[in-house]
Amino acid sequence: MQWRELPAIYFEDYGSPVERSSYLIELDTNDGGSYDVINDASSPAAGDCCAQQSSARHNWEMNYQEAAIYLQEGENNDKFFTHPKNAKALAAYLFAHNHLFYLMELSTALLLLLLSLCEAPAVPMLRLGIFVHATLELFALIVVVFELSMKMRWLGFQTFIRHKRTMVKTCVLFVQFIEAIVVLVRQTSHVRITRALRCIFLVDCRYCGAVRRNLRQIFQSLPPFIDILLLLLFFMVIFAILGFYLFSPNHSDPYFNTLENSLVNLFVLLTTSNFPDVMMPSYARNPWSCVFFIVYLSIELYFIMNLLLAVVFDTFNDIEKRKFKSLLLHKRTAIQHAYRLLITKQRPSGISFKHFEGLLRFYKPRMCARERYLTFKALNQSNTPLVSLKDFYNFYEVVGLKWKAKRNREHWFDDLPRTAFLIFKGINILVKSRVFQYTMYTVVAVNGIWILVETFMLQGGNFFSRNVPWSYIVFLTIYGVELLLKTTGLGPVEYLSSGWNLFDFSVTLFAFLGLMALAFNMEPFYFIVVLRPLQLLRLFKLKKRYRNVLDTMFELFPRMASLGLTLLIFYYCFAIVGMEFFAGVVYPNCCNTSTVADSYRWVNHTVGNKTVVEEGYYYLNNFDNILNSFVTLFELTVVNDWYIIMEGVTSQTTHWSRLYFMIFYIVTMVVMTIIVAFILDAFVFRMNYTRKNQDSEEDNGIVLEKEISKEEVVGIIELYKRSSAATETAQLQKIVLQMDKYGQMSTLFLGRRSRTKSDLSMKMYEEEIQEWYEEHSRKEESQTSLQEPASTSNSSVKPLSLRQRSQTVI
Amino acid sequence: MQWRELPAIYFEDYGSPVERSSYLIELDTNDGGSYDVINDASSPAAGDCCAQQSSARHNWEMNYQEAAIYLQEGENNDKFFTHPKNAKALAAYLFAHNHLFYLMELSTALLLLLLSLCEAPAVPMLRLGIFVHATLELFALIVVVFELSMKMRWLGFQTFIRHKRTMVKTCVLFVQFIEAIVVLVRQTSHVRITRALRCIFLVDCRYCGAVRRNLRQIFQSLPPFIDILLLLLFFMVIFAILGFYLFSPNHSDPYFNTLENSLVNLFVLLTTSNFPDVMMPSYARNPWSCVFFIVYLSIELYFIMNLLLAVVFDTFNDIEKRKFKSLLLHKRTAIQHAYRLLITKQRPSGISFKHFEGLLRFYKPRMCARERYLTFKALNQSNTPLVSLKDFYNFYEVVGLKWKAKRNREHWFDDLPRTAFLIFKGINILVKSRVFQYTMYTVVAVNGIWILVETFMLQGGNFFSRNVPWSYIVFLTIYGVELLLKTTGLGPVEYLSSGWNLFDFSVTLFAFLGLMALAFNMEPFYFIVVLRPLQLLRLFKLKKRYRNVLDTMFELFPRMASLGLTLLIFYYCFAIVGMEFFAGVVYPNCCNTSTVADSYRWVNHTVGNKTVVEEGYYYLNNFDNILNSFVTLFELTVVNDWYIIMEGVTSQTTHWSRLYFMIFYIVTMVVMTIIVAFILDAFVFRMNYTRKNQDSEEDNGIVLEKEISKEEVVGIIELYKRSSAATETAQLQKIVLQMDKYGQMSTLFLGRRSRTKSDLSMKMYEEEIQEWYEEHSRKEESQTSLQEPASTSNSSVKPLSLRQRSQTVI
Repeated sequence: MQWRELPAIYFEDYGSPVERSSYLIELDTNDGGSYDVINDASSPAAGDCCAQQSSARHNWEMNYQEAAIYLQEGENNDKFFTHPKNAKALAAYLFAHNHLFYLMELSTALLLLLLSLCEAPAVPMLRLGIFVHATLELFALIVVVFELSMKMRWLGFQTFIRHKRTMVKTCVLFVQFIEAIVVLVRQTSHVRITRALRCIFLVDCRYCGAVRRNLRQIFQSLPPFIDILLLLLFFMVIFAILGFYLFSPNHSDPYFNTLENSLVNLFVLLTTSNFPDVMMPSYARNPWSCVFFIVYLSIELYFIMNLLLAVVFDTFNDIEKRKFKSLLLHKRTAIQHAYRLLITKQRPSGISFKHFEGLLRFYKPRMCARERYLTFKALNQSNTPLVSLKDFYNFYEVVGLKWKAKRNREHWFDDLPRTAFLIFKGINILVKSRVFQYTMYTVVAVNGIWILVETFMLQGGNFFSRNVPWSYIVFLTIYGVELLLKTTGLGPVEYLSSGWNLFDFSVTLFAFLGLMALAFNMEPFYFIVVLRPLQLLRLFKLKKRYRNVLDTMFELFPRMASLGLTLLIFYYCFAIVGMEFFAGVVYPNCCNTSTVADSYRWVNHTVGNKTVVEEGYYYLNNFDNILNSFVTLFELTVVNDWYIIMEGVTSQTTHWSRLYFMIFYIVTMVVMTIIVAFILDAFVFRMNYTRKNQDSEEDNGIVLEKEISKEEVVGIIELYKRSSAATETAQLQKIVLQMDKYGQMSTLFLGRRSRTKSDLSMKMYEEEIQEWYEEHSRKEESQTSLQEPASTSNSSVKPLSLRQRSQTVI
Repeated sequence: MQWRELPAIYFEDYGSPVERSSYLIELDTNDGGSYDVINDASSPAAGDCCAQQSSARHNWEMNYQEAAIYLQEGENNDKFFTHPKNAKALAAYLFAHNHLFYLMELSTALLLLLLSLCEAPAVPMLRLGIFVHATLELFALIVVVFELSMKMRWLGFQTFIRHKRTMVKTCVLFVQFIEAIVVLVRQTSHVRITRALRCIFLVDCRYCGAVRRNLRQIFQSLPPFIDILLLLLFFMVIFAILGFYLFSPNHSDPYFNTLENSLVNLFVLLTTSNFPDVMMPSYARNPWSCVFFIVYLSIELYFIMNLLLAVVFDTFNDIEKRKFKSLLLHKRTAIQHAYRLLITKQRPSGISFKHFEGLLRFYKPRMCARERYLTFKALNQSNTPLVSLKDFYNFYEVVGLKWKAKRNREHWFDDLPRTAFLIFKGINILVKSRVFQYTMYTVVAVNGIWILVETFMLQGGNFFSRNVPWSYIVFLTIYGVELLLKTTGLGPVEYLSSGWNLFDFSVTLFAFLGLMALAFNMEPFYFIVVLRPLQLLRLFKLKKRYRNVLDTMFELFPRMASLGLTLLIFYYCFAIVGMEFFAGVVYPNCCNTSTVADSYRWVNHTVGNKTVVEEGYYYLNNFDNILNSFVTLFELTVVNDWYIIMEGVTSQTTHWSRLYFMIFYIVTMVVMTIIVAFILDAFVFRMNYTRKNQDSEEDNGIVLEKEISKEEVVGIIELYKRSSAATETAQLQKIVLQMDKYGQMSTLFLGRRSRTKSDLSMKMYEEEIQEWYEEHSRKEESQTSLQEPASTSNSSVKPLSLRQRSQTVI
């Protein structure tokens, strides 16, 4: 290896950087003219060597920090125009970019959102006095003001104004502030629909980046969606006119007697909610009138609605690809920026370990010295001791790897004495055998059938009998033995590293807890007993398609959760509006004059000598507090019988209330269609991927192997010793000791991380990615050549194409 | 051009074929040894030249016919093992392959299906005596027997047995025969569920090829579908057990009191049909019970159901591609077979026009001589007078073109005198101007708003007043003037060649007829008036996306219709079963003991001094005759409130009736999911295509240009004269006269046809197609080499790879 001959270049590299951190440039202008001195720090002609070296080191630290910030921006897809431009901004940036600050942001936003639980109309148990909740609100708003001021300090006023999301947030904050004060002064709540805007505080949180992306994607999918929606509504209007002409002569038909009714009922029919009732009066009079409804449903429901899905799916697909592309190019640009800050004038062809280590100290402070070096080695594809830009492009793929020394032992019990070893080895073989697996599947299946039959026999009565059924104990024992065998045979670490085993483990644990609950008669925990059938899920391991589906499900989970959260945000807005307008509007027997009276009826009448309670229950679907509103909105999302809720509210308020429900339907339709499109896209993508890589499907994650020799470790220890980093030195020395113990000259390390969607996309678009890169660098080149004459006046980061940059340097 | 120097090769080519029609080979074995004589027909050493030539011509005719049959088989995707193998089979094949026979097939099948309108339980108006309909059935079945015997004659007993569809048909026929005779003998109908199998007669029709393809596609998509369905049902069972444990202690909750109810209600909840009612009793008792339902719906409805769609969509996509591939390769093989029959030993490198013309005479008897020659020229890419195999591969793309002489005149009025020309030119420019178009759009929009407002003002009352509203006349006049201007400005032919103009024309015509109906007070035609709002559809021309959507809609229409037909076939089967089991089961007030009593109630009670009719109407959703059954099944397809129908029937029969409804739900779910997948696929495909070919999107169809010189025409006339084909000669001489009239030495012809899905696919899979071809020919080669030793014993058509074949010949 070449680097053993070049230790000096490798570890000692106080050359001056090609480009200096923008924070330093500002210092220069303050101090005046010190730049030249630093610049020549490595030249022997310079004066006080020691002071200069420390100054140079300080400057390098600044460069590391700025490079780390660039890389973070690349990772988080933050635009570069928000990059902190001077030392003051840097301080604010650092203050606003750590988990403490993020948590504060999140908790303030949550506090604001949760306040609606306590504000009138409040959830009965959580009601707070007006003074209390208004004060809480003011407090939270003041925290938000503080956050925003930090952000302004970091961005500068100009950029702050230009940043749309922040501006919207500021406006909302202003409105909320005034309203909160008004509430405090008047000591009574007014109609505060603007509370619906509180979501923006949550959306703006750092942790809700996924929600922001979803919202953006939804808004981007809107234009084609609206086009098709118009087509849908257009046909609805045509059919409404037609239906009015055809059916209004029939006086027993309440659905088409006015044009408004005709429109509303056809809108509801679009959701199929009033079918076949809406057809029945005309069908009873003339059987052929069903043609009208069949044609309407075929066109609207079966054709245009699917068309809607197709259009959204297509747009979604396209947006996903474009998003991936822009993210990829953004990361690339970030890497270029960081690279330029890390190379020296003396050796412009790559980054030395010293500087790379400095970067990682800022980028990933938790990373230990060994991992830093392994990351460096993993990046370095060439034989030189420098990481070239081409290698550095893989930064994001490599930096996420978790490194572990490859164990020479195959099983955890290899070190045990012979007899124990043989026993454990036997268990290991047993546990891994097909016979064992299929026996367990059979047991699970028998258990499933048992539970089903048992439940079926048990018609009513007290099924939580005092004595524990023996079958429960038998099956639980079998599962317990299996768990024990597997843990001992595979070793706890390997056992729990598989998701399926983890699932088995937790289900068995739950079953055991359930048994305890039964045995010790703890009523509140009975629900655990009921979870027993979940055991059956294990059967789905058997078939590859199910494994695929469940794996994809787990991969999708974060994305699904963020989509769910997005939906909840919409729910929140609508819940607030609904509460402001419809709180307390529906109650038992409220709507006796409307067409849906039955559903709201609550009668307690006597037939013979028995009291019969006739309950319509629909009065429970109200907007009386935010929890009720959420349930009601979920019912509206499911769509079935939503018109009963709508008509109930409408009969108590005005006709215009229908707009609220219709708009909600359309909004959820958009979000739901996008969720469907997303699930479709994810699965189809995954299936395509599996089809493309049928051979390599079994590996679950990205794995990299790197060998480190003892000499290298010693070399790095030297380096750390010089910069007097005690913990790092100690860590590394441990590795040397380990090597000495086993008498090895080198250790093999394995880097591992789970595969992300981005990795899959990388592989799927392999061919196109090269094209994008070329196009990107061409574009940048032309941009640079355009900017060149005015480059000095432009304070923002200069995009510099790579090819050009190497020309400049060489 | 080269062919002027080679007229003899081009037109006179009585050389012996390389491969002789299999029908001739059989004749040979009958006659013994005449093959050699024919084979050397072109050698001058042969004896009676004239008789030999006529014999050779007869043999060539046989070759033409077999080649044409191969090409037909390729086009219709008929397997080659059903290829007629001898002269007797050929006669039967020809008998069974013409539109008369197809029509007979279709009408017999329809007659059988329609019989169920008249058989008990019959539609009241169409009831026939048992003797009558059983005799009709027997007659139809005898016709089917005749058809099948023709098929057997053509296929031979061996192949007949091997052909699955035909065998199934035979079995069904046998059963139907016995049943019909039993009915005739007993003079009373028994439970005839087998009538549901009558569909097979329709499916087997030549004209229902698309339905067969759909069914195949549905069955191919089934395995992954069933997998996910099991997952769905599995979760359903788990939640049913859970729900039973959780909610059965609540005695006011009728939905979960037994495990069976729990299962049924969760199945219905899967379709959302009983939501939120199913939740209400438990929600009223404990608000947190909504979590159970929310989790259930999220998993089942929003996740697994979409997964189902994803899996079906993916499978569908894959099947579509594979189908396209196999069809393409099948066509290619057919072309190879035909090619081998058309080349001569003397000139094995291609097909001369003489033989090509002979082929077309059999393949497309209606084609005129000019078109035959133009097709030949369009195929012939090289300068030689022979069509090589490579050119011949484009046969199917070229043979569908409709040829027309390119007119030299730009407008239809170019030949008119100067003044008239200027007037018409003015109109032409006006009509084509943007101002005119947008004025018309405005008029349409105003008309739309007018209609809406007018309808809105007209609340009830007699809207078909005697006097025609003036607005109607004004707008109709404007449309009439527009129509007139456009027809005169563009010429009727050009005007009607655009689909949109055709639409305008027909809507205006309808409006005019409506006006007539109003003016002359013809009540039955009033419905035409109601179609006025359709005018508004014209507005959708404005935006490109709508144009795209509507164009795709028209392109999809045939496929959609076939899918609809497939659905109807399923409906038919279920309708028959439903009628046999549930006819007459539901009637007003039938289900007063069930949970859905209200929907079936029909009470005529007096409140005060007014009679109030309470109608539940659901008794109308019955299985009393086939038309009612179809409407009921449509309602079940729409899914909303389907459980009311199910519960009504169940309360009058047994619990097992639910199976019928559940199975129907699952079957329609499959078909509907596939329809959705199809629409998704078609639109996404189309949008991708548009994105790929953004420049060439405007051309609507495939166009080819070919020039024919006078000499060529004269040459062909010579050829036809020799074979004494009078009509062809006359046709061609007309062209020569035309050329002489205008003093041209040549005429330009345009071949045009609309673009099919196959053309789009060709373009989309451009790169892959070459791979398929290579793989195909490789596979064939290896097959041939395997078969070679035993080739003589194998009577079926020998697949011979092209490369090998040219080696053999040269």
